[in-house]
Amino acid sequence: MKRFALNQATTRHWPMPDLVAGCVQAGVTGVGLWRENVHGYGVERSAALVRDAGLAVTSLCRGGFFQEPRWWDENRRAVDEAAALGAPTLVLVSGGLPPGSRDIDAARAHVGAAIGRLVPYALDAGVCLAIEALHPMFSSDRCVVANLKQALDLAAPYPHEAVGVVIDTYHLWWDDAVWEQIARAGREHRIACFQVADWLTPLPAGVLMGRGLPGTGCVELRRFREAVDAAGYTGPVEVEVFAEDVWSRPGREVLDETLERYGAHVA
Amino acid sequence: MKRFALNQATTRHWPMPDLVAGCVQAGVTGVGLWRENVHGYGVERSAALVRDAGLAVTSLCRGGFFQEPRWWDENRRAVDEAAALGAPTLVLVSGGLPPGSRDIDAARAHVGAAIGRLVPYALDAGVCLAIEALHPMFSSDRCVVANLKQALDLAAPYPHEAVGVVIDTYHLWWDDAVWEQIARAGREHRIACFQVADWLTPLPAGVLMGRGLPGTGCVELRRFREAVDAAGYTGPVEVEVFAEDVWSRPGREVLDETLERYGAHVA
Repeated sequence: MKRFALNQATTRHWPMPDLVAGCVQAGVTGVGLWRENVHGYGVERSAALVRDAGLAVTSLCRGGFFQEPRWWDENRRAVDEAAALGAPTLVLVSGGLPPGSRDIDAARAHVGAAIGRLVPYALDAGVCLAIEALHPMFSSDRCVVANLKQALDLAAPYPHEAVGVVIDTYHLWWDDAVWEQIARAGREHRIACFQVADWLTPLPAGVLMGRGLPGTGCVELRRFREAVDAAGYTGPVEVEVFAEDVWSRPGREVLDETLERYGAHVA
Repeated sequence: MKRFALNQATTRHWPMPDLVAGCVQAGVTGVGLWRENVHGYGVERSAALVRDAGLAVTSLCRGGFFQEPRWWDENRRAVDEAAALGAPTLVLVSGGLPPGSRDIDAARAHVGAAIGRLVPYALDAGVCLAIEALHPMFSSDRCVVANLKQALDLAAPYPHEAVGVVIDTYHLWWDDAVWEQIARAGREHRIACFQVADWLTPLPAGVLMGRGLPGTGCVELRRFREAVDAAGYTGPVEVEVFAEDVWSRPGREVLDETLERYGAHVA
């Protein structure tokens, strides 16, 4: 339980003060925040709210989308916000192919170069840029980084204080190479964030909102947690679920079920 | 053009005699057939129809689904049908996780063992079992074999006359390791089938029917064709598209557009 953190995406419509109060009441010590929610409540106001409640901000989602024209300004702003919130990690969803492009190699190379340009800024801010590999069904439109090996290869040129990776069970469960890559991520001190969600079938249209609370799907969640532990990771375990049917329920109810499921299927 | 083959799935509702006549009229020399269509028209009747028209049956889809109780009988029947049709290759869609299971390693191991059991039967029939890696978004419900490396590793214990792989652009395009694995597939004489479809975004619900005709999406199709050629493959190039909007059009119109797009984006 000490390592459990609620990623705000799981209770997307829970207002920030209620989320913070609910976490404190439930004994939760960490939250992963999203920029869109933080912007809605105000960055400084969110930082004060969370700090005064004694909660740790375990990560901020998300930077990235490096194919967009304003990626440079937008990502520096995201780093600033992570620093203001006291989040050690900014999760990067790197973006898909540029409009009309079929060159995924070039798109991945651009992601690596863009992250490299951000490294000094991130180091100054004390924020680790965490490259998230997304499931390959998102390669065209959300993230050309499609497995953990690619994420680690992109991170490799840069200091591990500045560039790490996210290990997200939903995105990586299908890959039999993931276990050796998790061990590698530990050796290379790159595990900046560990996120848990379950895989449900069938997928909904657009495939973004089909995730399940822990234990509702087919992913070996505990195996992942044990693998990141064996790789030396001692940080928070965020549960991050995107699902309309979860979002439609009261935040505290979802948190309580999430905690129960976390105990049964992850911890 | 000589290597082009129409996979029947692209013109799913085109009746078998019309499909065969349309291919002959269009100068197409090969067709990939599907068991459900062949059953509808009759196996022997389909074989005679295609043979009399001078068409080659380039592949039969599909065997596999090894997690189902009747996989043994069903796959031997599929091998028999491939042999009766003169198809050198039976495409295997290996099946997802067994109901309630989370053990994808065990499911993959079972696929390898099941294929091994079929090898003598396939050798006797002169039919190559072609393991198809499906996109990882199908890992839970259709195919635990999720990339070309896994397919080749599963094939490795068996003679290449009996067990090969399918290289399908739709399923493999996101994987930067695919190019070295295509070269490996060539060295190991495993390329039994090459299928082309394009990737469209966004995906529809259930994600099965979202494929595009060549050139409508973001896949480097010609790069794939050149890679299989460079690996020594000289066989047919099947265009296989699952898409409701394509299926709703007249077969001959789809075939003509497919041929044009094949010339522009693949050949």
